[in-house]
Amino acid sequence: MRRILFTAAAAMLLPICLFAQEEPVDQAMMQKIRTEGLEHSQIAVIAHYLTDVNGPRLTNSPGYKNAAKWAAQTMQQWGIKNTALEPWGEFGKSWSLAQSYLSLKAPYFQPVIAYPKAWSIGTKGAVTADVIMLDTLSEAAIDQAGAAIKGKIVIIRPRDTTIVSAFKAYATRYTDTTDLNKLPDMYMVHGSLSQYKEYFEKVYAVRRYLAAKGAVALLKANPHGRDGTLFADGGQYYAKGYNSPLPEMIVGTEELLRMYRLINSGHRVQLEMNIQSKSDSTDTKGYNVVGEIPGTDKDLKSQLVMIGGHLDSWHSGTGATDDGAGCIVMMEVMRILKTLGVQPKRTIRIALWGGEEQGLLGSFGYVKKHYGNPADMQLKPEQKNVSAYYNLDNGSGKIRGIFIQGNEAVRPIFKSWLAPFADLGATGITSSNTGSTDHLSFDAVGIPGFQFIQDPLEYETRTHHSNMDTYDHLSMDDMKQAATIIAAFVYNTAQRAEMMPRKPLPKPERFVFDLDFPL
Amino acid sequence: MRRILFTAAAAMLLPICLFAQEEPVDQAMMQKIRTEGLEHSQIAVIAHYLTDVNGPRLTNSPGYKNAAKWAAQTMQQWGIKNTALEPWGEFGKSWSLAQSYLSLKAPYFQPVIAYPKAWSIGTKGAVTADVIMLDTLSEAAIDQAGAAIKGKIVIIRPRDTTIVSAFKAYATRYTDTTDLNKLPDMYMVHGSLSQYKEYFEKVYAVRRYLAAKGAVALLKANPHGRDGTLFADGGQYYAKGYNSPLPEMIVGTEELLRMYRLINSGHRVQLEMNIQSKSDSTDTKGYNVVGEIPGTDKDLKSQLVMIGGHLDSWHSGTGATDDGAGCIVMMEVMRILKTLGVQPKRTIRIALWGGEEQGLLGSFGYVKKHYGNPADMQLKPEQKNVSAYYNLDNGSGKIRGIFIQGNEAVRPIFKSWLAPFADLGATGITSSNTGSTDHLSFDAVGIPGFQFIQDPLEYETRTHHSNMDTYDHLSMDDMKQAATIIAAFVYNTAQRAEMMPRKPLPKPERFVFDLDFPL
Repeated sequence: MRRILFTAAAAMLLPICLFAQEEPVDQAMMQKIRTEGLEHSQIAVIAHYLTDVNGPRLTNSPGYKNAAKWAAQTMQQWGIKNTALEPWGEFGKSWSLAQSYLSLKAPYFQPVIAYPKAWSIGTKGAVTADVIMLDTLSEAAIDQAGAAIKGKIVIIRPRDTTIVSAFKAYATRYTDTTDLNKLPDMYMVHGSLSQYKEYFEKVYAVRRYLAAKGAVALLKANPHGRDGTLFADGGQYYAKGYNSPLPEMIVGTEELLRMYRLINSGHRVQLEMNIQSKSDSTDTKGYNVVGEIPGTDKDLKSQLVMIGGHLDSWHSGTGATDDGAGCIVMMEVMRILKTLGVQPKRTIRIALWGGEEQGLLGSFGYVKKHYGNPADMQLKPEQKNVSAYYNLDNGSGKIRGIFIQGNEAVRPIFKSWLAPFADLGATGITSSNTGSTDHLSFDAVGIPGFQFIQDPLEYETRTHHSNMDTYDHLSMDDMKQAATIIAAFVYNTAQRAEMMPRKPLPKPERFVFDLDFPL
Repeated sequence: MRRILFTAAAAMLLPICLFAQEEPVDQAMMQKIRTEGLEHSQIAVIAHYLTDVNGPRLTNSPGYKNAAKWAAQTMQQWGIKNTALEPWGEFGKSWSLAQSYLSLKAPYFQPVIAYPKAWSIGTKGAVTADVIMLDTLSEAAIDQAGAAIKGKIVIIRPRDTTIVSAFKAYATRYTDTTDLNKLPDMYMVHGSLSQYKEYFEKVYAVRRYLAAKGAVALLKANPHGRDGTLFADGGQYYAKGYNSPLPEMIVGTEELLRMYRLINSGHRVQLEMNIQSKSDSTDTKGYNVVGEIPGTDKDLKSQLVMIGGHLDSWHSGTGATDDGAGCIVMMEVMRILKTLGVQPKRTIRIALWGGEEQGLLGSFGYVKKHYGNPADMQLKPEQKNVSAYYNLDNGSGKIRGIFIQGNEAVRPIFKSWLAPFADLGATGITSSNTGSTDHLSFDAVGIPGFQFIQDPLEYETRTHHSNMDTYDHLSMDDMKQAATIIAAFVYNTAQRAEMMPRKPLPKPERFVFDLDFPL
């Protein structure tokens, strides 16, 4: 899941469809799906290969490309048709690490838990340098430090000098007393393009200034990391014309606070840093992975049910919960339906997106290419053919219901579809919006796009964009439940007499993920 | 706090002292202590210097010696008399690190969170090697692997292949509903010397065998570590005649489980390891730090009230909660009493012990030298002069009462002394025993030795012996409370008309920390 400013079209509340009819559900098929999903699950195997074997999947990295090829091949072996790595447009440089460590050398030796920001340039071999602390990361503060900055590793005086409390559990579930029908809007972060552009250019400029003044590297802590967990993401330097100005690392909060206190009390802090990273521009295109179970009804097979999650991840873990979980579950959905020999009326298409973490780039590129551009709302004919798009990107927690994004006409349909799975804890239908992931790209051009409500587990607190986003932090049982329910939703959508009801087209709006500069 | 088998004399339940009188308490002095301890605390400053500035304090390491000198100097500057580094006997080799990192090289690069075991030998520079997994760490399993072991880094097939749940908070407090007067015995681990010796010799032999077969290194995970937290202790190779047979590292649980899964599914795992460690035998003696506020009553000044914690720590953090907290609080107790200009009747002596983590060595050596040997119960005259020894070594949680170790005669006395601090949450007097730390050395020769009941916080779950045992995991407010209450206890013990009542002498017993081989 991505967290960035965007100006997604605000959801419009629609009048409730008063003449909704009881939605027919094939109970025998629901039972078959349940048996295959819960009792013959391949979730753990898929998860192992996606995360442990392929490693981190930063967009356009060798790890991403290996994982994309593996996903396409694996699905092809299952009998999924038309599997392909489909380019969605121009992305930028690849990036990978060949070495990375940071150590405290003075006042004493100790290894430091740290990770380079993505697309960071490397150091010139192992570099030993003293640490200097600036009050803020600004040109003024750099000027104030003057010549002292040359040859130094820079930290910024932290605003919060304590770690977060451990008196609350890191993992939680929606309890049975939570009203899952009345969740608030989630992850809907709005901002203006001009504000963001201004912010980004400032971020970029101050780093170039720091490098120009001879700083060796910049170290940053993440405010809610602790215990060895690093939240290591960004790095906007993949795009043409933008290059990481100096090595940049995220450092464990405890380690950065120690440096801060030592410098504050007049002690010298010396570090050894070694980052060897590789960035190249041999193939700067971005790719999604697609595959299909073709429809079999001559009138409906040109229509689509789509499902997806994003295949790209940040780089310090193995993208297990963000969004390995979504990809694992959606691949398992395809496997369940294929294994059951389902002959769907409509075509079922999976898409595993690239570039989500850089601004929903893969799904947006796909939507622009196939369905239309939300900036001018010039739609392509195929836009009419997508019944619904289902997305999963809030970690590996089980499904507790679905966000209907203000599309009240789907409420009675989803209610009927969830009913067979009430015993698995999936009961909520909330009209709220949820954002920051790929269903927004569909929603933006008027295609019903949905994201499920999931139990939080430790997604926000521990794994999201962190070095702990690894296999062991996945809940396999939760993902089995999710795959089962989504397989049912997909089947029902494919077989339904009508396409899914739509909201009126949103107003044309330009997304920040359609900018002329990188996010 | 140390966790090891020992054969401490079992506590004997004594008849309750039925003729206990109301214990007089100097309420004005209690108020002064409270004001100095809670409102003018130096806890945070002492903590910063002890942990951040001095670094890890492995027994006999340069960090230990720096910290010992700093503690003695600091107390001397406060006006504490007779500060000294007092040798307690023969320990063994020093050890320190100059480089340490571990990286995954295949199937892809990723830095690995890992820490050498203490006293581990280093590698020959940066070594790249494949990983081999043995079913158990035994000669038979090594033989089974045969020549394949040569040049490999060894892991052992984990028994538990999942990480512990995060649905419980890592930090907890005794709630007000816990009966603090009825806590169970804690940390009282018994075992026989012969069993332990057999265990140790086996541990040592299998590692020598592994090294002889050409293994490059041994990696181990700690069962309850997760999120980047490593529980990295042992290493028994400090003693004369014992030498680390091969480099040994503790690896993050998630990282070790990934290697296990990759090897299980037939993938090659390659690592790069670089450990540069230094061990020397220039000074193999162990040292405690001592200091006094001399008594002023001509009849009582030869009598003592003693307080302490252990200054030594494990090496991957900075020993903040184990037992920095005890040392910080006890130093602050001395500062509070000195600042208030207390002229105690009895002498108040602080001792910050070395070698606790290797078997209560510092306190036991001190007790043997000054008070007698529990093995034969040949006591020295000074044994009669120590009224009580108070210890603090269960992390930085506030005091909730005291373990009286079966010495029921002290119950009414401690009850009166705790009364003025009931509002600070310290109310419990439990007859139970608590073990695994230095008051046992005193208890073993019949000197009343006590350890306080403390809120657990995240001591057992996160910091004890881990790389997260650092400044930021200390609770400063809790330690202020502890220093205040202990200062009151020390004052009351120093001024009391009588010495503290004693239990009958325990049976002579040989402790494992008096062995002819290292623990």
